[in-house]
Amino acid sequence: MSIRAAVLTAPGKAPEVWDIPDPSLEPGSVLLETVASEVCGTDVHLSHGRLAGVPYPIIPGHVSVGRILETRGVAKDFSGAPVASGDVVTFYDVHEVCGACWYCLVAKQPNRCPSRRVYGITYSAKEGPLGGWAERIYLKPGVKLLRLPEPLTADEVIGGGCGLFTGFAAVERSGMALGDAVLVQGAGPVGLSAAAFAALRGASLVIVIGAPANRLELARAVGADVTLSLTEMPPRERAARVRDLTGGRGVDVAIEAAGNPAAIEEGFRLLRDGGTYVIAGHYTDVGTATVNFHTDVNRKHADVRGQWGTDFTHVWRALTLLAKHRDRLRLDRVIGGRYGLDEAGRALADVESLAVTKAIIVPSKTTRPTAAG
Amino acid sequence: MSIRAAVLTAPGKAPEVWDIPDPSLEPGSVLLETVASEVCGTDVHLSHGRLAGVPYPIIPGHVSVGRILETRGVAKDFSGAPVASGDVVTFYDVHEVCGACWYCLVAKQPNRCPSRRVYGITYSAKEGPLGGWAERIYLKPGVKLLRLPEPLTADEVIGGGCGLFTGFAAVERSGMALGDAVLVQGAGPVGLSAAAFAALRGASLVIVIGAPANRLELARAVGADVTLSLTEMPPRERAARVRDLTGGRGVDVAIEAAGNPAAIEEGFRLLRDGGTYVIAGHYTDVGTATVNFHTDVNRKHADVRGQWGTDFTHVWRALTLLAKHRDRLRLDRVIGGRYGLDEAGRALADVESLAVTKAIIVPSKTTRPTAAG
Amino acid sequence: MSIRAAVLTAPGKAPEVWDIPDPSLEPGSVLLETVASEVCGTDVHLSHGRLAGVPYPIIPGHVSVGRILETRGVAKDFSGAPVASGDVVTFYDVHEVCGACWYCLVAKQPNRCPSRRVYGITYSAKEGPLGGWAERIYLKPGVKLLRLPEPLTADEVIGGGCGLFTGFAAVERSGMALGDAVLVQGAGPVGLSAAAFAALRGASLVIVIGAPANRLELARAVGADVTLSLTEMPPRERAARVRDLTGGRGVDVAIEAAGNPAAIEEGFRLLRDGGTYVIAGHYTDVGTATVNFHTDVNRKHADVRGQWGTDFTHVWRALTLLAKHRDRLRLDRVIGGRYGLDEAGRALADVESLAVTKAIIVPSKTTRPTAAG
Amino acid sequence: MSIRAAVLTAPGKAPEVWDIPDPSLEPGSVLLETVASEVCGTDVHLSHGRLAGVPYPIIPGHVSVGRILETRGVAKDFSGAPVASGDVVTFYDVHEVCGACWYCLVAKQPNRCPSRRVYGITYSAKEGPLGGWAERIYLKPGVKLLRLPEPLTADEVIGGGCGLFTGFAAVERSGMALGDAVLVQGAGPVGLSAAAFAALRGASLVIVIGAPANRLELARAVGADVTLSLTEMPPRERAARVRDLTGGRGVDVAIEAAGNPAAIEEGFRLLRDGGTYVIAGHYTDVGTATVNFHTDVNRKHADVRGQWGTDFTHVWRALTLLAKHRDRLRLDRVIGGRYGLDEAGRALADVESLAVTKAIIVPSKTTRPTAAG
Repeated sequence: MSIRAAVLTAPGKAPEVWDIPDPSLEPGSVLLETVASEVCGTDVHLSHGRLAGVPYPIIPGHVSVGRILETRGVAKDFSGAPVASGDVVTFYDVHEVCGACWYCLVAKQPNRCPSRRVYGITYSAKEGPLGGWAERIYLKPGVKLLRLPEPLTADEVIGGGCGLFTGFAAVERSGMALGDAVLVQGAGPVGLSAAAFAALRGASLVIVIGAPANRLELARAVGADVTLSLTEMPPRERAARVRDLTGGRGVDVAIEAAGNPAAIEEGFRLLRDGGTYVIAGHYTDVGTATVNFHTDVNRKHADVRGQWGTDFTHVWRALTLLAKHRDRLRLDRVIGGRYGLDEAGRALADVESLAVTKAIIVPSKTTRPTAAG
Repeated sequence: MSIRAAVLTAPGKAPEVWDIPDPSLEPGSVLLETVASEVCGTDVHLSHGRLAGVPYPIIPGHVSVGRILETRGVAKDFSGAPVASGDVVTFYDVHEVCGACWYCLVAKQPNRCPSRRVYGITYSAKEGPLGGWAERIYLKPGVKLLRLPEPLTADEVIGGGCGLFTGFAAVERSGMALGDAVLVQGAGPVGLSAAAFAALRGASLVIVIGAPANRLELARAVGADVTLSLTEMPPRERAARVRDLTGGRGVDVAIEAAGNPAAIEEGFRLLRDGGTYVIAGHYTDVGTATVNFHTDVNRKHADVRGQWGTDFTHVWRALTLLAKHRDRLRLDRVIGGRYGLDEAGRALADVESLAVTKAIIVPSKTTRPTAAG
Repeated sequence: MSIRAAVLTAPGKAPEVWDIPDPSLEPGSVLLETVASEVCGTDVHLSHGRLAGVPYPIIPGHVSVGRILETRGVAKDFSGAPVASGDVVTFYDVHEVCGACWYCLVAKQPNRCPSRRVYGITYSAKEGPLGGWAERIYLKPGVKLLRLPEPLTADEVIGGGCGLFTGFAAVERSGMALGDAVLVQGAGPVGLSAAAFAALRGASLVIVIGAPANRLELARAVGADVTLSLTEMPPRERAARVRDLTGGRGVDVAIEAAGNPAAIEEGFRLLRDGGTYVIAGHYTDVGTATVNFHTDVNRKHADVRGQWGTDFTHVWRALTLLAKHRDRLRLDRVIGGRYGLDEAGRALADVESLAVTKAIIVPSKTTRPTAAG
Repeated sequence: MSIRAAVLTAPGKAPEVWDIPDPSLEPGSVLLETVASEVCGTDVHLSHGRLAGVPYPIIPGHVSVGRILETRGVAKDFSGAPVASGDVVTFYDVHEVCGACWYCLVAKQPNRCPSRRVYGITYSAKEGPLGGWAERIYLKPGVKLLRLPEPLTADEVIGGGCGLFTGFAAVERSGMALGDAVLVQGAGPVGLSAAAFAALRGASLVIVIGAPANRLELARAVGADVTLSLTEMPPRERAARVRDLTGGRGVDVAIEAAGNPAAIEEGFRLLRDGGTYVIAGHYTDVGTATVNFHTDVNRKHADVRGQWGTDFTHVWRALTLLAKHRDRLRLDRVIGGRYGLDEAGRALADVESLAVTKAIIVPSKTTRPTAAG
């Protein structure tokens, strides 16, 4: 038997539906039937070849939810909770962090471990179904398995997707204090998550700058107190509004989730003296920004913190809080469209054009070709 | 009676020796006879008008040592140690931090208090002898007075000067861990101090990049393990050396004490993933730097921290450690020349040309004009 | 004219209503007409003489709300917002932190400044109306004035009272991470506040242990997810419940707000390995606890953090968040009784017996004696 | 062939020399010829049965140095440096931290991982030569191997031993600031290491309380500024000395390395308000201490931090710094006696009686019995 998967064969090429051989399960591995997998901005970057070192052809889909089909000696999820065939689970896309190198052992920064690999990004399709845009996903031994915390649904988890974890990580990285005023730049999945978690962590004020209007509406729904349009309000006016809202000082914490160098300049301008600026949206090389290190960093006594990827602690904590606050967050609302494997190209286009905030791939929705694939 | 002082009358003008009226002492004030006052890079900037909001004419000299001439109800230094006429003391040049504003009370960042004023920089010569390039210095009520910790001499304190405190603050701001590899960019007073304190705080490796050769020699004397010439070794070779010395990773902590945007680019390149970069040398506007926030900050998971000015805690701690390690540090060696008030212009020129690392003004050395001044 | 005030004349004595001379206003001072002042557990301790160094006779009442009657050159509150006669304000009870000693300058711990004095506790009634249980309160020059953040009422601020700030400080002191499980020991004003702010700061689980039942109901109303009765559930069962709720590990953070050494033993037992335990409720000497530093601290790798008093940053931040979340918190519900100055003894008794969670003194409610007081 | 080893067969029994079968090497494993292994206070505790869960019979010796005899596919140490037969190496005694549980993944506290095992303590002699008191040591796959940093000798590393790492961890755990005054309680291996690293991390003052006199002399040699005798100076006098040395305030940081509840009471008394107290010496259950949480923790605003075991980052960093400062530290001086395997009982007795600070087991020194062992 084989597995149908949507494959990015090379940068700039449209995704193709391939048949991938079924994996033979090693001890400690798990096979999932894919329920849904996300399409995120990173997948758009992957389709254009904007990340270095990607082993095309690949099966995208780094955050996914699946139903356990088969396990080889795995009876528990990471926390010790029992899992069995039929259970709906998710897993941590980051894998093969070695636990034995200088970064893992001395620096304690596993997100910079050179062995680190990521489902849906750094595995070749030739290595097996190691991405979520496939009917089944092979979880190699050691992949961190996680039962969905009650009462979360697959849609809520995928609606959050990897942006949920990145936004969470960015908020924790800021070290914000209770009562801080927080600016989030960007209203995509990372920005929405950062806004939601900043509010949940006790910001007295969460401002989101972004576009289009429906994303700003979502931002307000998940916790933003004020939204300012990137496209309809001129920068000078945005600056005046932020000053007004912060006693003339600027925000205590800014979180860049825009992925655009132009945001950097505005971020420094809106940050108060002594504030903290987390750079979370520059996941790919989108060009350089010009910074005056006297006015923006030194005299401002600023903290500027890059947030690269996530760590499992963010995943577990984010899902735990999502379960607690699901009524408020309702992240399933973020899902703008459901696409079969054969519609992956359209899903990418819709994400890129901002037509949808979050697209999801639902393999079972795939139209079967008349001749067997 | 009047007080002779070297005065910067306006940007771009040579210093002049003026007679300033003797102040009348308010309750809580102290009058010092100046022993020595430093000439630092900031004074060169002041002479060129590169700082905003300076109320020319001013008497420069923010870090000074003096002998108590007279006190009005002041019998103790800040720590409660008794002080009396004839004692040799120093004082904290930063004054009038209000303790009552949002920055002082809520943000706990007195270095960004809007009321903050600095001896030798933000007081007009018309307000009195409030800078160290004068025969006497008036310490307004509330100025933090500090007996020189035993057995420090005036030369050791002034040899350190404000750079001693800024370098100290930069090292503490880095939050470096015991055993870290530290790069210091710059071998002027701030860089030398940062190198010394990084070594004293348990760096396993302190690398200094700077020039000229005699400053690098001083850097090694105060604690640098390796020095790399800014002028004689090409950047590519410096990068290779740093990689070799750090297991190929780059440094854990970099401290910018160069005051040059070109240093920024090199600093990011030599910083390891997950490292911390303290920006301490951009005290004035020396132009912009170009930064790729994807490669330099986000993917690198970097911490970039501006260090603006100092706080009294740095002054006290730095002097305490200087007293303990004086045999090793011997900061009097940094003093390259002693100048009378009438030689202030030459002192500025010698600092600017790097002819001396540290120049000091010794008012008693001033040549008396034949006609009384 | 004179001011009527409820005075604790000596330990163990019932409060008396005294006439205090009206103060003459110094430059920088403000006179308030008292709207309401709280009666907190500390006042009970003061009535019994359990705090050292209290200069009886005193006018209690450290957190108060008042209406501005008169000002001497004060036109703004601490944040720069304009204030004028008739405005309803509060103020920070901690005063005379010197800003000039080792603790203020070097250690940066103004809550341990030896000059620190507190309205309602460390001022004698002979020094003037420097406590809130009086018709008018004299705000000495430099007291931090604060307009009530819109749309808070006096009842909401006093309902929170000093416990609001202490609970806030305890939560910040814990350094809790987003998604942590938090235990609060005690359901008095400090415990309720800690539970509320732990929830607002993104705890995934807030457990409160306390009594009686109506306080636990309040705890759930302000954010506790689970409450366990101190009186009706045996310790062994409480421990089992906490283990069940935390994957068998115990809580990430425990906050002691019980003021009872017996709580300490239970707190260590319920804390997970590597957890943080904040001691906030031992404001007076209630005796010793027995601790096994091997099992409870060393092997547990525990963090135990004392929280002494508060700092203005806590006050401002707590009130800002209270204003944002007033609908959820409704701290006016905590007020169990309103007492005139002549009823202060009964107010103390009701607080001590736990008959009310929070009593408030409303001077205008005082019954005028037939013969002028 | 077999391996001779000194074995603790049961609590309270004298060590016996056993013959252990030679292990068969798994892929990824290494076999060492033991150069030397330490005898530390923990081994004394083990001989008395004071640790819970120890699987007697055991081969003690958790920190050891050996020469590589044979490897199975291991060509590099943890840092990537090549290793080959004949090389002298050490290894991290803590093993089997899982990297997959809640403590490893979420709490980021591998020192509390339930799977954690320790060479010389938690492995049975029946599992193989998994302790250093043996002619050969079997390094299971995944054990962290470390070449001795140049130019360290085996004696210097073993002279430091596990106390070197624990003392290092305690100093880092304190978060001390540059210029802090530090008290170390205890002058055994942990205390000496803490004193050394506190000095290397920039303490302005390191005070050691301990006994006997020769240990205090060692303490001064490695960096203590002042030593106070536990046996010859009464507590009241020690307290007076500490106050004198710290401006009357007490120390900023205290580190308990005494393993005695009596030390706790003195530690709290000598700690300044707002200070940090690290509990590192209570590795076994030595009974309870009585603490007044009002005066010692709450009002003092103290931080009390347990330090359980170590992490590899401490080992690597400590050895790196030991290599840099070897001339000053000369930890080989700590070694008071070298014992063969057949002399292990005497070694334990000499450590327990404080006759030697550090005993080492040198298997090659073992007297061969006339009949082959």
